[in-house]
Amino acid sequence: MYDLLKRLRVVEGSAFVAAPTCGLYLAQMGAEVIRFDAIGGGPDFRRWPLADNGSSLYWEGLNKGKKSVALNLSSPAGRELAQRLAAAPGEDAGLFVTNFPAEGFLAYETLKALRPDLICVRVMGWADGSQGMDYTINAALGLPGMTGPADDARPVNHVLAAWDLLTGAYCAFSLVSALLARMRTGEGREVRCPLSDVGAATMANLGFTAETLLAGRQRPRMGNDVFGAFGRDFTTRDGQTLMLLAITPKQWSKALDVLGLTGQVAALEAELGVSFTADEGLRFTHRARLYPLFERAFAARTAAELAPAFDAGGVTWGAYQPLEAALDDPRLYKDNPVFEAIRHPSGLSYPAPGAMATIPQDARGPVRPAPRLGEHTDEVLSEVLGMSGGEIGRLHDAGVVAGTDGQ
Amino acid sequence: MYDLLKRLRVVEGSAFVAAPTCGLYLAQMGAEVIRFDAIGGGPDFRRWPLADNGSSLYWEGLNKGKKSVALNLSSPAGRELAQRLAAAPGEDAGLFVTNFPAEGFLAYETLKALRPDLICVRVMGWADGSQGMDYTINAALGLPGMTGPADDARPVNHVLAAWDLLTGAYCAFSLVSALLARMRTGEGREVRCPLSDVGAATMANLGFTAETLLAGRQRPRMGNDVFGAFGRDFTTRDGQTLMLLAITPKQWSKALDVLGLTGQVAALEAELGVSFTADEGLRFTHRARLYPLFERAFAARTAAELAPAFDAGGVTWGAYQPLEAALDDPRLYKDNPVFEAIRHPSGLSYPAPGAMATIPQDARGPVRPAPRLGEHTDEVLSEVLGMSGGEIGRLHDAGVVAGTDGQ
Repeated sequence: MYDLLKRLRVVEGSAFVAAPTCGLYLAQMGAEVIRFDAIGGGPDFRRWPLADNGSSLYWEGLNKGKKSVALNLSSPAGRELAQRLAAAPGEDAGLFVTNFPAEGFLAYETLKALRPDLICVRVMGWADGSQGMDYTINAALGLPGMTGPADDARPVNHVLAAWDLLTGAYCAFSLVSALLARMRTGEGREVRCPLSDVGAATMANLGFTAETLLAGRQRPRMGNDVFGAFGRDFTTRDGQTLMLLAITPKQWSKALDVLGLTGQVAALEAELGVSFTADEGLRFTHRARLYPLFERAFAARTAAELAPAFDAGGVTWGAYQPLEAALDDPRLYKDNPVFEAIRHPSGLSYPAPGAMATIPQDARGPVRPAPRLGEHTDEVLSEVLGMSGGEIGRLHDAGVVAGTDGQ
Repeated sequence: MYDLLKRLRVVEGSAFVAAPTCGLYLAQMGAEVIRFDAIGGGPDFRRWPLADNGSSLYWEGLNKGKKSVALNLSSPAGRELAQRLAAAPGEDAGLFVTNFPAEGFLAYETLKALRPDLICVRVMGWADGSQGMDYTINAALGLPGMTGPADDARPVNHVLAAWDLLTGAYCAFSLVSALLARMRTGEGREVRCPLSDVGAATMANLGFTAETLLAGRQRPRMGNDVFGAFGRDFTTRDGQTLMLLAITPKQWSKALDVLGLTGQVAALEAELGVSFTADEGLRFTHRARLYPLFERAFAARTAAELAPAFDAGGVTWGAYQPLEAALDDPRLYKDNPVFEAIRHPSGLSYPAPGAMATIPQDARGPVRPAPRLGEHTDEVLSEVLGMSGGEIGRLHDAGVVAGTDGQ
């Protein structure tokens, strides 16, 4: 971890991906992040993938470096504690990240009564408060119809929950931005980040919506062809699949050079009366003529021949590899200083990442594992809410709070 | 736009998606964002999709609300101007976002000599500085092998540049976090965000890497099945495709209820000796038994019957729709207050989004279009670098800078 956000105290009432990644990014930049959950765990506490003992590898990945408080969220007393935590006192506190419903016991107006300058960043599904998750919102945006081979009409969902992830990072940005504003004016606010608006805005930011308005229909599916430039997967003589990409003139000329296609492509340019170097769009328009040349060039060479030639020639390319191969790839996992092998709540030890960014001038602090559920209940009630040991004991006895693993 | 980041001056030297979205998010929260480009445009200035007149809908989507400066970046004088802009003076300036190479004329050490407390957030491809783009890094992470129908082994690239987008938002978060640290200590820093580390860390945060380590191989591809719970696309009697999802017990029981499957599923539970309600993982394990029940239930009903029943019953579902239908969907585009119809540099008028988040207590300022290339060259040289009209005129004459559309 780094210490850019040292001294911030963020409370997280969350589940699944978006809000927990927001808290994760904040924690890895040095904030104290306190996540509260229902006793026994929220709806994501047993989410797959699981370790053999039933621990969630997903949960322990998304909650690294946080503190955990377990509350009986169905009881009025437990809900009141959640409210008090969300509105925790202190100059660098009063920062709450949640995906709890906008109406309900964690409504902004309720929390604001406890702390007028509260900053509340709220992940939502649909902007109107109705239930939406990454999968259903992605389906509504048309992407599954644009994804996958052109010869297959079945919708293809993404495996990576891209909308959740983008929303989580945008929430972390929103929270720090709202804090900067509060430092200037003293005012807090609620910032609502619905997946539906993140998705709708992003499709517009990238030009998909304007394109669809002009064409009257969305972009047709085209397999792995890179839209508007030259790029696709190709297969080598030894059956390896490589992604080749040429957007800039330099990327294009280097690819031709290494593949020995400069002459053949010049002949095609002469035939068509175009310059592929000057206009990446023409490479796309005429891709049906270009692809066979590239297919033959790849089919004549092995991956072992191509890889060093591509690298030496500065070509933009990459091999498709399964994740088990990526784990041995020194550029990604093996030898990557972002990762550190640590012991997790599941009892397993395996490499886990700290902050996704690297600050060359600062030392990377240790990667901290996720907490056990409820591990910090007593510590947080005492330090954040100023409760005495007696009070905390009574809350345990009444079943309002629980300690590590429900004890 | 909102004004959380009012008074910040951010300079962006960028291309493509990640760094430009970082600047976009900052601008839409109130920062002044000045993007510089080569005269005539950078490598993304003509990126598809295009308007009929050749304007890039992509470029004008990603650069809304920014100022544009055009510099001759191949000349020493133009490069020096870029350096001075990156290190712009002022308490709330000295904030630079870029995807220019870490070594080169925009290296951090070079810029730091101009402004010791500079904050530089740098998007990179591979962490070692070698060329990597969303497509090639995604291929290296295994996802194309996990995506798409189980009966087709071809790799499936994502259409949404998820790694670029996540990196852009994380960069915006990193920049405001580094600013907060600078306000506390006076120190600036370089923050490097390589797509490769964002990708590698995210696959670990979500549990994919631990799962692969345990299983010895990555998750097999499984079409649209939601891993570890119940979810998939189903087809109605009238041929509509709907996504149904049930992760929580409540989502599960509501779906059964509306589809009239409670009894049949109870019988299956009795036969198998399991409780699907209590354990979402069992719904996944036994999905081959469950799917036929759901397929029949969907095939017996039309989408028009199911939609209101699902909504009334609180089921988590969504229709697959193409983007042209989404544009008419009041929840996404039509009637969405995040969007405003404005005129863009292409000459076209169409709805464009402001900030992806909504702050109920603050008024949304107008959505501002992208600039014309070079539109703010003179203004910025004068206001930011304090140049006189004479100096600016000489730079134009020498071809070091250009104004609107190259003039």
